[in-house]
Amino acid sequence: MKIQLALDRMEIGDAIQLTRLVENSIDWIEVGTSLIKEYGVSSIKEIKKAFPTKVIVADIKTIDNARYEFEMCFNAGADVATVMGVSPYVTIDTCMEVARRFDRRVMIDLLNTSEEQKKELMNYSEAIFCDHVSKDEQEESGSRNLGVDEGLLFADSTRQIAIAGGITLESLAALKQKLNPSVAIIGSAITQAKDPADAAAKFKQVIFHVEGV
Amino acid sequence: MKIQLALDRMEIGDAIQLTRLVENSIDWIEVGTSLIKEYGVSSIKEIKKAFPTKVIVADIKTIDNARYEFEMCFNAGADVATVMGVSPYVTIDTCMEVARRFDRRVMIDLLNTSEEQKKELMNYSEAIFCDHVSKDEQEESGSRNLGVDEGLLFADSTRQIAIAGGITLESLAALKQKLNPSVAIIGSAITQAKDPADAAAKFKQVIFHVEGV
Repeated sequence: MKIQLALDRMEIGDAIQLTRLVENSIDWIEVGTSLIKEYGVSSIKEIKKAFPTKVIVADIKTIDNARYEFEMCFNAGADVATVMGVSPYVTIDTCMEVARRFDRRVMIDLLNTSEEQKKELMNYSEAIFCDHVSKDEQEESGSRNLGVDEGLLFADSTRQIAIAGGITLESLAALKQKLNPSVAIIGSAITQAKDPADAAAKFKQVIFHVEGV
Repeated sequence: MKIQLALDRMEIGDAIQLTRLVENSIDWIEVGTSLIKEYGVSSIKEIKKAFPTKVIVADIKTIDNARYEFEMCFNAGADVATVMGVSPYVTIDTCMEVARRFDRRVMIDLLNTSEEQKKELMNYSEAIFCDHVSKDEQEESGSRNLGVDEGLLFADSTRQIAIAGGITLESLAALKQKLNPSVAIIGSAITQAKDPADAAAKFKQVIFHVEGV
């Protein structure tokens, strides 16, 4: 399981400085939606430039204008870009087409998708599926719902899954067991920790402990 | 009916220059999603600074992290900001709360919402509802669907409606009759016209002709 560090609600310089502290414990770097919307595509360029050997995920959250947005992300250096599962299918089709052309990957964010939509979306077999409890939902409920239905849905699937939203050291092992994700997206549990390097190292340890490799 | 000029897929300087040519014929200025995602929040700031007396709509397309994104838009000078109707309701609740606090407005983008979601969303009585045919859907179908179901849904409503997506001089009158919108969002029919000032003036004329005031 890879750790995707989500960088949100901070300046680009601070994001780079923070990532330096933890880079040995994390695998992928997510340029968060808040960075893209606040600073534009230069946020992707600067973070790719600072970490050229890391996989960079642009959390662009495309819901329309797919070709323009995905070409923009990939031209800026992103290796993965996100599209909302609640988008019209033509939008997701276009994202897949652009990603194939650039030899990059699409992450489909399942935020607020219905069970029916999830089933349809599973047809995009090359995508990574992000089981996402949103920031706003976390703030309301105060914790992460383990998503039993989604667990069942994914159980027999060969699809690659990422999990996002309010993941902590304590919840990671249970989520791993339930959803068997390829990617755990960790934000504030590392970025807001008193000692981010220590927090990131502990996540890496938990994964080693759970996976044994 | 107001004309909202949608600025998309161009540099900020070009957007300002183009808007200067048409500003006497249009009412509201939309900082398009593509400008925000490419250049960040400075796109909103620069356009508000250039046109301080116009209503500025930030097409931020929020789907999570509502407080952060809406405060960012309003602090940058936006008078209206957009949230996706397919968002979790807690996200839309937060947008409404932030807008009330700033004395600004929320536009709910109905892109890809189900009939059931639309009915629920009508409870946000202070919002403007944007009946949106996406860029990607237009590119696929080649034209705008007049959206009869939505017309029926809105017919007895006192809700304020904006229409967006592929509106032309030819389709505006029929859309007006069907949906009685308060705002017509026009993008490429003005911005990509050979003579944008002439195109914008013609839209203004059509509205005068239809409304008689």
